[in-house]
Amino acid sequence: MTTSTVFALETMDVPGGTETILRGGRHLFPLLPRALAGVRRIGVVGWGPQGRAQARNLRDSLAGTDITVAVGLRPGSASAADARAHGFTEEDGTLGDWLAVTADSDLVVLLIADAALAAHHRKIFAALKPGATIGLSHGFLLGHLRETGGDFPPGHGVVAVCPKGMGDSVRRLYEQGAEINGAGINSSYAVHADPDGNATDRALAWSVALGSPYTFRTTLESEYLSDIVGERAVLLGAVHGIVESLYTRYRLAGDDGTTAYARSCENITGPIARTISRAGLRAVRESLDASGRDVFDRAYTATYGPAREIVAEIYDEVADGTELRSVILAERRLGTRPMSRIGGSPMWSLSDRAHARRDERGLPGGPVDPFTAGVFVATMTAQVDEFAERGHPWSEIVNESVIEAVDSLLPYMRARDVAYMVDNCSRTARLGARRWGPRFQTAYEQIAYPAAEHPADRALLAAFDTNPVHEALASAAKLRPAVDISVG
Amino acid sequence: MTTSTVFALETMDVPGGTETILRGGRHLFPLLPRALAGVRRIGVVGWGPQGRAQARNLRDSLAGTDITVAVGLRPGSASAADARAHGFTEEDGTLGDWLAVTADSDLVVLLIADAALAAHHRKIFAALKPGATIGLSHGFLLGHLRETGGDFPPGHGVVAVCPKGMGDSVRRLYEQGAEINGAGINSSYAVHADPDGNATDRALAWSVALGSPYTFRTTLESEYLSDIVGERAVLLGAVHGIVESLYTRYRLAGDDGTTAYARSCENITGPIARTISRAGLRAVRESLDASGRDVFDRAYTATYGPAREIVAEIYDEVADGTELRSVILAERRLGTRPMSRIGGSPMWSLSDRAHARRDERGLPGGPVDPFTAGVFVATMTAQVDEFAERGHPWSEIVNESVIEAVDSLLPYMRARDVAYMVDNCSRTARLGARRWGPRFQTAYEQIAYPAAEHPADRALLAAFDTNPVHEALASAAKLRPAVDISVG
Repeated sequence: MTTSTVFALETMDVPGGTETILRGGRHLFPLLPRALAGVRRIGVVGWGPQGRAQARNLRDSLAGTDITVAVGLRPGSASAADARAHGFTEEDGTLGDWLAVTADSDLVVLLIADAALAAHHRKIFAALKPGATIGLSHGFLLGHLRETGGDFPPGHGVVAVCPKGMGDSVRRLYEQGAEINGAGINSSYAVHADPDGNATDRALAWSVALGSPYTFRTTLESEYLSDIVGERAVLLGAVHGIVESLYTRYRLAGDDGTTAYARSCENITGPIARTISRAGLRAVRESLDASGRDVFDRAYTATYGPAREIVAEIYDEVADGTELRSVILAERRLGTRPMSRIGGSPMWSLSDRAHARRDERGLPGGPVDPFTAGVFVATMTAQVDEFAERGHPWSEIVNESVIEAVDSLLPYMRARDVAYMVDNCSRTARLGARRWGPRFQTAYEQIAYPAAEHPADRALLAAFDTNPVHEALASAAKLRPAVDISVG
Repeated sequence: MTTSTVFALETMDVPGGTETILRGGRHLFPLLPRALAGVRRIGVVGWGPQGRAQARNLRDSLAGTDITVAVGLRPGSASAADARAHGFTEEDGTLGDWLAVTADSDLVVLLIADAALAAHHRKIFAALKPGATIGLSHGFLLGHLRETGGDFPPGHGVVAVCPKGMGDSVRRLYEQGAEINGAGINSSYAVHADPDGNATDRALAWSVALGSPYTFRTTLESEYLSDIVGERAVLLGAVHGIVESLYTRYRLAGDDGTTAYARSCENITGPIARTISRAGLRAVRESLDASGRDVFDRAYTATYGPAREIVAEIYDEVADGTELRSVILAERRLGTRPMSRIGGSPMWSLSDRAHARRDERGLPGGPVDPFTAGVFVATMTAQVDEFAERGHPWSEIVNESVIEAVDSLLPYMRARDVAYMVDNCSRTARLGARRWGPRFQTAYEQIAYPAAEHPADRALLAAFDTNPVHEALASAAKLRPAVDISVG
C-alpha cells in the first residue's frame, strides 16, 4: 500500500506537477503506535553519527508508548560506553549484540558504515525475525547488492528514511524542536519492498519520530544516486575544489593568505550559505551592487558549463556502478595504505586567523564576495539541473543540492573547516571527495576562471533567473521553520 | 612456438633475472620473408599516427620482397588522400576498404582508434581469411573484450607489437635509421594466441620491419595495463598535473609567469628529459650542487608517497576494468557534449614567450631546476616501483615509465606544449589524463609540497639510489643508439 491510513499525506505543488509529502511535527507523535502496529521493538544497529542521533530521537518520540528502542553494536565495538552514557544499557535490554538486537526487532534500522554493510549484510539478513522491516538511511546497500548480484531477503519490507543532514544536526535540530515545533532535518522516504502492506506507515512513522519537518517521497535508487552524486559534487567534493581554486586565484591576484581564505572558504560557509538558507539562490545575486552583479554574472556563466560537465560524469559513473567499484577497490587498498589527509595544505593553516576575524557571536557577517558567489551558485545550479534532467523529484533535488548544504553541511564546515569535513566524514564520502574535488578544482582553474574574463552569457543568466528551482525552494521553505543553523 | 627459428633471440640481464629480447637493425631485413612465410599481404587498417607510420616503415623494409603492404580505410575516411599522397593507391592495390583489405591479408595490423575497435571488431574478425594473424599495437581490445564478455576469433594467431612512442617518432627515427643503424623506437611484442605455430616469427618480423632497435617480450595483458596506467601517470596525466601545480607554486612564491613556466614545463621537457635520456635518473640529482641536491631530496621524498598512492589507485582501476567502463561512459556522453580543452589556462598563454627564451637551435639549455626535478623523478620512480611490484618485465617498466617519456613524449611536449598533447592525443589517453592529472596536481599542492618543508626522508633516498631501475635503464641504453630526439 503506497498511501497511509494513519498520516495525512499532502500534495505539494512543484515545478511541472505535484509531489506527495508528509508534514511532520510533535503533534503527530500520538499517532505513532498505530502507524507502527506490530512493531514492539525498534533495533537501531550502529552508534555512528546517524545511529546515535536516530536512536535518541526515536526513543524520545516513543516515550510513553509500548515500543522500545534498542541499540545493537558489533562485538567489541568502541561505542558501547557512549551508548550507555546516553541511557542505552544491557540491563534494561536496550543495548546488545547487533545480531541479537536484529533478531529481536520488528523494525531494524541499519546505520552502520557502508563498508560494514557490504561485508556483513548477509548475516544481518539471516538474523531477521519473520515480518521484520529493514530500514536504511542510505541507498548504498542497493547499489552494492546490484553490483555484486545480491538481493534483499524476500518476505521482509524494505524501507528507507534518509535525513538530509548530518547525524549531529538530526539530533540538535530535534532538540530545538521542543521549542520550535517542526524544527528538524527533512527526510526522504522510500518503500522498496512491501510484502505485508505496512511498509509505508512504518517508514512515515520512523520519519515523523525522527522529527523531520517534512518527509518527501522518493525511490531507493533515486535516493542512492542523488546522495552519492551530491556528496561528490556540491555537498562536499566540489566545495573543496572550489575553495582551493578560489584561494589560489585570490592569492595569485595579490591577496594575502588570510584575505584569500576569507573570500573563499569563509564567504561560502558564511554569508553565501546564510543568504541561500534564508532567501534562496537569486537573493545571493540580488544582494550585490551593479558592479558586483557583473562579476557574479561572468563567474556564473564561466563556471556553469564545466560544472555541469563534471556532475554529468559523476552521475554516469555512479549510475553505472563504476564509482562503487572504485570505492570497493579503495577500501581494499586502504587496508594497507591509509588515506592521506588533505588538511595540511597551505590554506588550512590560516583557518585560525580567519576565524579570529569573525564577529564575537561567530555569525557570518560581511558581504557576499561576487566572484565566489557566482562560482558557487553556478555549481549548485549545475547539480540541480543535472538532477532535474535525470528525473529526480523536486523535493529531492532541492534537499540534496541546496538545503542539505546550506542548513547542515556548510555550517559544519564553518565551525570546523572544509578540510576537516573531507578528512572526517563517511568513508564513501571521503573517497568521493578526493576523487572528484580535484576535477572541479582544476577545471575551474584551467577552463572556468580564464573564461570569466569574457562577457557573461545572457542566455545562461536568463536560464538561471527562470530556473524551476527557485519555486521548488520556496515551496520547501514554507515547510520548515527558520532554525538556528549555527554550530556551537 | 615461443622461440624463433629465424631471429637470434638474446638473453638480457635485468634486475632479478633475465629477459628475452631481440636486437633489431636493417641487417635483419633479408630475414623478413622467411619469418613471414605464408604472408603475401600485410593489411594495415587505419591511417592515424601509428597507421601511417607503420605502413610506411613496413613497406620500406619489405621493398624488393614479394610481400605487399596495403592500407585499409573505413568507407568515407578522410585519410584516403593522405594515404595516396604517400603512395598507397587503389590502382596498385595498396589502398582499399578496410574489410576488403582485411579479407585479403595474411597479417592484419589493426591500428584504428580504440572506440572504433570497440565498435567494429566483430565485423573485422568476421572478414578474416583462414590462417590470418591479427596484429595489435595496443592492449585495449583485450580489456574491452574482457569487460564485454567477448573474445578473439578462434583459429587465428593474435600478436601484438607495440612501439614505445608516438607514431610520428616511429617514422621519424626509422628514417634516421637509414644513417644510424638501429635508430628507432623500441617495441614490446606479445603472442596471445598461436594456433599455427608461426605467431612468434610473424610478430618479431613485424617489429624488426618497423625498425625497433630492440624488441622485448611481454603479454597482451601486461602491455595493456602498463600502457593505460602509464598514460594516466608519468607519460601524460601526471605530467600535466605536475606542471600546473609547479607553475602555481612558483607564481605564489613570486616568480613572474614566464619564469614559472620555464621552471616547470620547460625544465621538465628540456634539461630534465635530456639528462635522463642520456645518463639516467640518478644523473639528474648528480648534476646539482649541494644546495640543489638538498632541495631535490626534500621534493623527492615529499612527492614519492602521494605519487605512489595515486599510481596504485590508477592501476587497481585499470586492472579491475573500472577505468575502461568510465572511458566507455565518456564516449557516450561526449557524443552530445564535446570534451573541453585545457589549453586555455593561464600558463599556456605564456608558452610563446617561454619558447622565445630558448637558444636558437631550440636545444634544451640551462640548468635542471632542483625542486621540479625532485618532483618529476619521484613521480617517475613511483610508477617504476608500482609496476615492479605488480610483476611487469623490466624492459616494459623502463620503456613505459622512462624511455617513452624522455625519448618520445616529452620532446613532443617541448615542441608543442603539454596542453597540446592533453588536447590532441588518443581519445583514451585524453580521457585518462583529464581524470587523473587533477589528482596528481591537487595531491602535490595539498600534501606533497607542504611536506617538502621538512627534512628529506633518508630511507626513501637510499631506496632511490639503489633502485633496480638504474641497472635496467643502463641495459636498455646499451641496446639503442643515441638519436636526435628533438622535434623539428
